[in-house]
Amino acid sequence: MSTQVQVSNDEQSIRELVDKWLDASKKGDVATLLGLMADDVIFITPGREPFGKEVFRANNQQPQLKEATSNILELKVLGDSAWMRNYLDLIISSPNGESKRHAGYTLTILKKNRNGQWVITRDANLVMPKE
Amino acid sequence: MSTQVQVSNDEQSIRELVDKWLDASKKGDVATLLGLMADDVIFITPGREPFGKEVFRANNQQPQLKEATSNILELKVLGDSAWMRNYLDLIISSPNGESKRHAGYTLTILKKNRNGQWVITRDANLVMPKE
Repeated sequence: MSTQVQVSNDEQSIRELVDKWLDASKKGDVATLLGLMADDVIFITPGREPFGKEVFRANNQQPQLKEATSNILELKVLGDSAWMRNYLDLIISSPNGESKRHAGYTLTILKKNRNGQWVITRDANLVMPKE
Repeated sequence: MSTQVQVSNDEQSIRELVDKWLDASKKGDVATLLGLMADDVIFITPGREPFGKEVFRANNQQPQLKEATSNILELKVLGDSAWMRNYLDLIISSPNGESKRHAGYTLTILKKNRNGQWVITRDANLVMPKE
């Protein structure tokens, strides 16, 4: 008797997207990161104006992420759209070379593009420095 | 020749929900606010753990909102779900009686409940004190 939970292909694809995102962030692989977001993506973060793909590219020329754990708390697929609530716990290197822990929740809207690939379209990211 | 943009009933209902929300907040009408959210609502805000309906109720026993303007930047209806990106500009009274401006963006997930009424189900709220 199997107790395995049935996970849809869409859900599995989105979970893989998160893993790819964190892996590419650690490597500083900006090209891969840009491929995981819609062209009209909007990132919403505390204390600054929302920004899109070009600003993301400009801000991520240096790898800053050292370690990352992701805990997807909720994931709802609605046809070709989805939303996800995630908890991220990160070690990020600051410009002076010190490492600092950042943690917090994200609420993300995703969509399936014309090629059937899931991409991030809106991301409210409340990850903040953690003592 | 009409240049009027066709607004769906669902979109109109969600815009009315936002107006009702701000109006009830100004009045300190917690019962109305609780009726505009799903029982399993989760509010995600900077610097604290996400919270639900009971904590919302406990935190909103005094009217704190003096003035509010809302600018719905995006609203996507996906069947019985929807997401919305909003910009809120608020005057909130602090415990010492002073008024302070708070502003920022929200990313909200809504759903249509069994009665056909739209309610807030997840709300990432990045409204913060503004100088």
